[in-house]
Amino acid sequence: MSSISVLGEDEVSSFFESSPPLKNMEEIVHKLNGFIQLNSTGGRRIVCVTSGGTTVPLEQRCVRYIDNFSSGNRGAASTENFVKAGYAVIFLFRRGTCQPYCRSLPDDPFLECFQFPDNTNIRVHASHAEAVKMAVMDQQAAVAEARLLKLPFTTIYEYLQMLRLIATAMKDVGPCSMFYLAAAVSDFYVPWKSMVEHKIESGSGPLDIRLAQVPKMLSILRTNWAPKAFCISFKLETDSKILIEKATKALQKYKVHAVVANELSTRKEEVVVVSSSGNVVVRCNSEKPESIVEDNLIRLIVDRHSTYIKEFGT
Amino acid sequence: MSSISVLGEDEVSSFFESSPPLKNMEEIVHKLNGFIQLNSTGGRRIVCVTSGGTTVPLEQRCVRYIDNFSSGNRGAASTENFVKAGYAVIFLFRRGTCQPYCRSLPDDPFLECFQFPDNTNIRVHASHAEAVKMAVMDQQAAVAEARLLKLPFTTIYEYLQMLRLIATAMKDVGPCSMFYLAAAVSDFYVPWKSMVEHKIESGSGPLDIRLAQVPKMLSILRTNWAPKAFCISFKLETDSKILIEKATKALQKYKVHAVVANELSTRKEEVVVVSSSGNVVVRCNSEKPESIVEDNLIRLIVDRHSTYIKEFGT
Repeated sequence: MSSISVLGEDEVSSFFESSPPLKNMEEIVHKLNGFIQLNSTGGRRIVCVTSGGTTVPLEQRCVRYIDNFSSGNRGAASTENFVKAGYAVIFLFRRGTCQPYCRSLPDDPFLECFQFPDNTNIRVHASHAEAVKMAVMDQQAAVAEARLLKLPFTTIYEYLQMLRLIATAMKDVGPCSMFYLAAAVSDFYVPWKSMVEHKIESGSGPLDIRLAQVPKMLSILRTNWAPKAFCISFKLETDSKILIEKATKALQKYKVHAVVANELSTRKEEVVVVSSSGNVVVRCNSEKPESIVEDNLIRLIVDRHSTYIKEFGT
Repeated sequence: MSSISVLGEDEVSSFFESSPPLKNMEEIVHKLNGFIQLNSTGGRRIVCVTSGGTTVPLEQRCVRYIDNFSSGNRGAASTENFVKAGYAVIFLFRRGTCQPYCRSLPDDPFLECFQFPDNTNIRVHASHAEAVKMAVMDQQAAVAEARLLKLPFTTIYEYLQMLRLIATAMKDVGPCSMFYLAAAVSDFYVPWKSMVEHKIESGSGPLDIRLAQVPKMLSILRTNWAPKAFCISFKLETDSKILIEKATKALQKYKVHAVVANELSTRKEEVVVVSSSGNVVVRCNSEKPESIVEDNLIRLIVDRHSTYIKEFGT
């Protein structure tokens, strides 16, 4: 029984048992199985990229919730690079966050990108031509070729149930599968059963909230759900002094293959890949202005994955 | 001094003094003054529509925050109707929420609306032609004719500072100005100065958070910031049994001209306009499938505003 308590399986089971069930589970499973079968038959590697923050409702009929800041930019940029490197990507993303191939669009694309010069033909402003072409052509091509499957979530309950579905469906892909867990997952939540049904009244005085810890699913993912998959997790801190230490601890605790350590204020310029073979600093190419840190990060991760696949059979 | 304590002016001052200052205040003021001058010179009525939920950061270098659920659909639909009724609209909206003229677009417009048949010309799929035309032509026309000014916010600090700026800038518009406060504003927050700087560590055990009440700005808006403006506030509840009672209390307490009462589960079909002249139930037109509740709601509000303007001088 000792291994069970180490993994926290009891907590995990009770988390899932008390979660509100996914509304469209059959549709998700159907899409997933089709996508995985098509790609694994062709021998293609498959990565699940998670992206954006999860919400934690404070009321069952939810008006208020706790959220994690995450634009989804890392996950979107990484997805594009994985597709370019030949992978099929399951993009598990928070609704409303940054989408692959859409990072160069302005904040308000319908106000800024287009015009209707003669009431029938739409035209793209020259300044946004490349961005729109990428968002439409490259994205549609990736989806049409079954290289990209987009699955949205909002709450921590949806996220963890969908991650479990994906991991289970990917089991047979073995070492050719990867989890690249860039989503900002809530550490604390209000258990569904102890949550008030109605909107909390704003009567008088302060409001006290007690939040429980979300069980760490990473151990279960590694041990039970998808033990053969290559697994990358992320660690974000605002204090650079504790970042590498915390990433190293996460590497050991969850037995993932690498932890990408990033600090909030410099995360777009630099990350550190922490693994048992040492720490590697990854930056964008300073000579190329359009270069992003994910270009070099995904190159490194893909190399590591190749080594992992090669060594797996031996 | 008694009137000061009734209004809670002390709390309001200390809220603003401790708020992190707006980053682009000069730019906002410049845009606002231009927009208001242009429209008020022409004798046009001006409404400030607030839309979407405000966030409350839990850390100064914010990773986690509390948010209020709000799609922004009500504010966006109301904005379109106000423009149609001849108003100039200052749309104070939460970043990422529903935009005016964009409500009919699909969730993932760049994946679904367009195609590039020959690599140079973009085309809109017939099924989305009307939605895209509205998002581009109607929206651009409203902005170009200075009938729509869009100002984004994220946090409660940004929202309340911007609302004060707008109210102050609108003061001279007098009874021809309106506040239509559809945004879901946080009731509770962590005062900036008592907030931790770094990300809260997810060590062991539960997390306890104490939230203070956000001072009610509605009294100050009515009494100090824009006393001559016509003012509509909103009350959302999940429990229909307490809805009308709470809306009526808000009407009396904040001395607004009407409170739009809506229940979370039926808010798209029906609202109740609560005012000193009685309660009016407003629904969408059941014969017209494309009819929305805001069509009739704004018609009623505009009529009430006309009466208010007429009676103001007498």
